[in-house]
Amino acid sequence: MFDLLKTDSTSKARLGRLTTPHGTIDTPVFMPVGTQASVKALDPRELLEMGTRIILGNTYHLSIRPGMDILRAAGGLHRFMNWPLPILTDSGGFQVFSLAKIRKIQAHGVQFRSHLDGSLLFLGPKESMEIQRTIGSDIAMVFDDCPPHGATPREVRAAVERTMRWAAECREQPRAPGQHVFGIVQGGSHAALREECARAIVGLGFDGYAIGGVSVGEPEPEMFLAVEQTEPFLPAGQPRYAMGLGTPAQLVELVARGVDMFDCVLPTRVARNGTAFTTQGAVSIKGGFNKADFRPIEEGCECFACQRFTRAYLRHLLNVNEILGLRMLSVHNSHFYLKLMADIRHSLASETFGEFRRRFIAHYVPTRKVLRERGAGQRPRDPAG
Amino acid sequence: MFDLLKTDSTSKARLGRLTTPHGTIDTPVFMPVGTQASVKALDPRELLEMGTRIILGNTYHLSIRPGMDILRAAGGLHRFMNWPLPILTDSGGFQVFSLAKIRKIQAHGVQFRSHLDGSLLFLGPKESMEIQRTIGSDIAMVFDDCPPHGATPREVRAAVERTMRWAAECREQPRAPGQHVFGIVQGGSHAALREECARAIVGLGFDGYAIGGVSVGEPEPEMFLAVEQTEPFLPAGQPRYAMGLGTPAQLVELVARGVDMFDCVLPTRVARNGTAFTTQGAVSIKGGFNKADFRPIEEGCECFACQRFTRAYLRHLLNVNEILGLRMLSVHNSHFYLKLMADIRHSLASETFGEFRRRFIAHYVPTRKVLRERGAGQRPRDPAG
Repeated sequence: MFDLLKTDSTSKARLGRLTTPHGTIDTPVFMPVGTQASVKALDPRELLEMGTRIILGNTYHLSIRPGMDILRAAGGLHRFMNWPLPILTDSGGFQVFSLAKIRKIQAHGVQFRSHLDGSLLFLGPKESMEIQRTIGSDIAMVFDDCPPHGATPREVRAAVERTMRWAAECREQPRAPGQHVFGIVQGGSHAALREECARAIVGLGFDGYAIGGVSVGEPEPEMFLAVEQTEPFLPAGQPRYAMGLGTPAQLVELVARGVDMFDCVLPTRVARNGTAFTTQGAVSIKGGFNKADFRPIEEGCECFACQRFTRAYLRHLLNVNEILGLRMLSVHNSHFYLKLMADIRHSLASETFGEFRRRFIAHYVPTRKVLRERGAGQRPRDPAG
Repeated sequence: MFDLLKTDSTSKARLGRLTTPHGTIDTPVFMPVGTQASVKALDPRELLEMGTRIILGNTYHLSIRPGMDILRAAGGLHRFMNWPLPILTDSGGFQVFSLAKIRKIQAHGVQFRSHLDGSLLFLGPKESMEIQRTIGSDIAMVFDDCPPHGATPREVRAAVERTMRWAAECREQPRAPGQHVFGIVQGGSHAALREECARAIVGLGFDGYAIGGVSVGEPEPEMFLAVEQTEPFLPAGQPRYAMGLGTPAQLVELVARGVDMFDCVLPTRVARNGTAFTTQGAVSIKGGFNKADFRPIEEGCECFACQRFTRAYLRHLLNVNEILGLRMLSVHNSHFYLKLMADIRHSLASETFGEFRRRFIAHYVPTRKVLRERGAGQRPRDPAG
């Protein structure tokens, strides 16, 4: 299912091709997030036009709404939302641990109350895989225990053990025809736990491997550390997926660390706040300096928004709360991420990724938050936070 | 500028063609409303695909945001919002009288406070025409005094006199190259005032004539009455525009009463509440009965939404507040209005409008609100409201 086509000589970056029931995917790849059966504000035509090859769905959210009866009656998620290409579904583990109220962790899953109406639900390896089978995703994720940033070593160890046990359970569940299942490695930024978890999960034999427990509130250096601690124990011949990451510069750096697949809500989330990604970094389109700027968000950008609209117009739309504003920023930002991955793949194919990486990072100005985190990573952690 | 191509033998319906600087428009025509330089939730490609030939902009809103400096710098509204076809701008009169706070009506316009930030502004015939010249609309409307439903005969008379005086002032202002200017007839549902106002406005000589003071909260029968009281005094050789109307069935009936042009926020406004128009009437897509209905909103509909999505999926999107839901209902409803007008034009061309009208009205179930209003129109008005 995965062809490793090329490996970069200056880093761990890899060019690959992933085959699924609904089509092949060139990697490294960015997967727009369609949690509730819709990539926020975008329609399928827009997604296809910007080069989307695979999107995400979410087991937890979809099992609550629209619910399995409807997804079953629709003939699966692809048909329900009219998306013709591959779908990867997250297992719901992350949401059970971050969204649900009054959790009770049991041997074979988690009893919890819905974040929506408080109804009592149970999700475990068996339930999650059954839902993902009904959804009919091309890639299903195992049900894991994802502890938050700041969990104690003891808590992280418990999560790792649970994650390993549940992965074994998931491994045995029936799948949709042709459905791939990816294992997930937990372990925080504890090298020993990452290695232990990775070895165990890889030992079970999955179709791909995800690095979980990142994008849970940790500063950037800790995130990179967790990836670096995990990657050496993942087999070269299978795809690696860093869950929930990241900024454009982080994606480039994660590719350099051997990651092939990414998903992130940033492109559409910051769009709704009026922020657009450019090769110079993120810029606020709402800013007064765009008032009479009749250039596109980024010169040379081939997205639907930049081909049609000026910063001045988009700023006006955002200012007066017209939906077209956040729509067009969602288009631009998602296109930016997809184009970034396409550029990375071209540079890998032409063996110039090292140069591409150097130039991209030199031009891209990270946000103050990221810069603060980088500073924080270089000195002992301040216990006051 | 206006060719009257055909007149219906069973009603006052007319087939025509209107020529403007940015293109010709076949009438009867529906004009989607882009108050703040955006037809809510839609992009220009979607508008063009559904057959939009002319949209509305609004003098009051655009003069506040983005403001005239920016529209001037952009080179007008067409370029600012990248809309290649005709634009009609409302004069701002309606908004000054309905939205603005602390109005002070003066001889040459209205002093008022912005609904947005309370700043003191002045809008009159001269200012409105100057703004519409800067906007560069294909059709500008005169600045009128539009009294609310329930105004006393004395108030309506004062509004009519002011409207006539201001129309004469507007008539003398400079225009954008090729810009048409339409007069507006006020007069509530007072036959004598409607006739007096219509004769005066027509006497001034405009490029087209609008029936104003409708869609201001009056019940349907009163609205039809106002149109019927005005239409006989409008010249056959020029376009007639009923402002702010109406439901699909009302549009058919207004065409039959000799109206050529319509604008209405209903298609996009009710979309945001989860309501879709069909040939059977308006239906709530949010309704539980659509939960597992895997048909499109309307069988045979050729809109972008009906070609791709089911009621079950759209209901889900609306239910979980995904923007794609209201987007797709906005697409469907706007397409429905435009297709209705195209069907009307075809029936006029093939001399079957009478049959089309009979069938459409027979199938289209009005909302309870409209039915109540029709009942109310048949008996003396209840003074308690």
